[in-house]
Amino acid sequence: MITISILGSGKVAHHLILNFLEQDNIKLQQVYARTPNKVKDLVAHNQIISDINDLLPADIFIIAVSDDAIEEVSASIPIKNAFIVHTSGTKPMEAIANTDRKGVFYMLQTFSLDKDVDFSLIPYCIEASNPNDFTLLEKLALSFSERVYKISTDQRQSIHLAAVFVNNFTNHLYTIGEEICKENMVPFDILKPLILETANKIQVLSPKEAQTGPAARNDQSTIKRHLEALTDSNKKEIYQLITNSIQNN
Amino acid sequence: MITISILGSGKVAHHLILNFLEQDNIKLQQVYARTPNKVKDLVAHNQIISDINDLLPADIFIIAVSDDAIEEVSASIPIKNAFIVHTSGTKPMEAIANTDRKGVFYMLQTFSLDKDVDFSLIPYCIEASNPNDFTLLEKLALSFSERVYKISTDQRQSIHLAAVFVNNFTNHLYTIGEEICKENMVPFDILKPLILETANKIQVLSPKEAQTGPAARNDQSTIKRHLEALTDSNKKEIYQLITNSIQNN
Repeated sequence: MITISILGSGKVAHHLILNFLEQDNIKLQQVYARTPNKVKDLVAHNQIISDINDLLPADIFIIAVSDDAIEEVSASIPIKNAFIVHTSGTKPMEAIANTDRKGVFYMLQTFSLDKDVDFSLIPYCIEASNPNDFTLLEKLALSFSERVYKISTDQRQSIHLAAVFVNNFTNHLYTIGEEICKENMVPFDILKPLILETANKIQVLSPKEAQTGPAARNDQSTIKRHLEALTDSNKKEIYQLITNSIQNN
Repeated sequence: MITISILGSGKVAHHLILNFLEQDNIKLQQVYARTPNKVKDLVAHNQIISDINDLLPADIFIIAVSDDAIEEVSASIPIKNAFIVHTSGTKPMEAIANTDRKGVFYMLQTFSLDKDVDFSLIPYCIEASNPNDFTLLEKLALSFSERVYKISTDQRQSIHLAAVFVNNFTNHLYTIGEEICKENMVPFDILKPLILETANKIQVLSPKEAQTGPAARNDQSTIKRHLEALTDSNKKEIYQLITNSIQNN
């Protein structure tokens, strides 16, 4: 049994709480939330604390707050020599203050409050400052999934950068697709199977092999017509830049 | 029973052939291929013709060739007043020559030779110059899927443009993600669950609601660090442009 307390009440904390509660080998001890209302429907009243000084000892303290608050929250944990991990893709492990037992439990996935996340499909990128704590963190991750990776801070930061491209930027391209549909009175639903297949395809093909379209086949007349059709200068610029990038690849 | 002949031997023709052969209400009559070897493993030898003058009458002739060859191929069909459709996302219906019975059978999906495509999940965008032919084309599409849309040439061209953003450009972002992983000795596999979830998410949330990341939350310190980490000027430019676009959205 691993005893865990969570510090935070945002999207990541929300999904951690939901999934930890379902796990037999995990005891979710306390949730520290500055705004307890955000988690009151998830955990029992007496497990929620809004004063960090009410924290009890636990095997792992998981800080799931905004990047800039990690240092301050970790410094406020009143337990001596606690094992404290954060869940950030970008902050170094060293951002954790006030203990020599530091770690990172980075779940490489996108979280929204309104959408369940299957924890068994998440890659867990873990790091810890000492071997025993690493083993404990690994045990925690393995209780959800086999996709557990030992990842250094440098690697994690590069993974996070890659994730911005394949997740945040991709989602913005979906937004542009939706806007173009709306302008032309076409339901956005019509693009959804294509979006899914695009993501499915690279589960079996490398993205380089999977590349198709006017840029890849240097179809200048289509590219020209598309650029003319795009009246929005921002969309035009994105079209031109990514088309060039595909062609130089 | 609908009798169909296919003109072409590329990716779209390949998947049309495979799926038409499985359908009870469709008789695949002939496949016209300038390079018959490309389809010889798909259809019986006597169904393949390499001389377009060997075409027999059929209910629908489907032209699945490159955009620029549509006019020439349609002009060469030796059957009088045939119902001829093309499968292009960009060419007007009028690109079909030599008949008054023109149509479009545009499947909004991405096709690769090495990846099966589920025809029941494809949105079919159809158009025809006369109502009876439209009904026939609709019947053909409905034999695969309920996602059948009456779409004008103008709308189809805008859908194709949107598809370039959500499919071709998205796939290029996956390529960039893979390159960043390689440079940092991280397996690209680690990003695949995130890529799938990004596509899955907008099946239930609008992409605008689903937008997360440093740009959306105006996390300037992460954006700055990412831009510094990107040594490739092209990747840096894409990062900057899409970040700005998210922030202006």
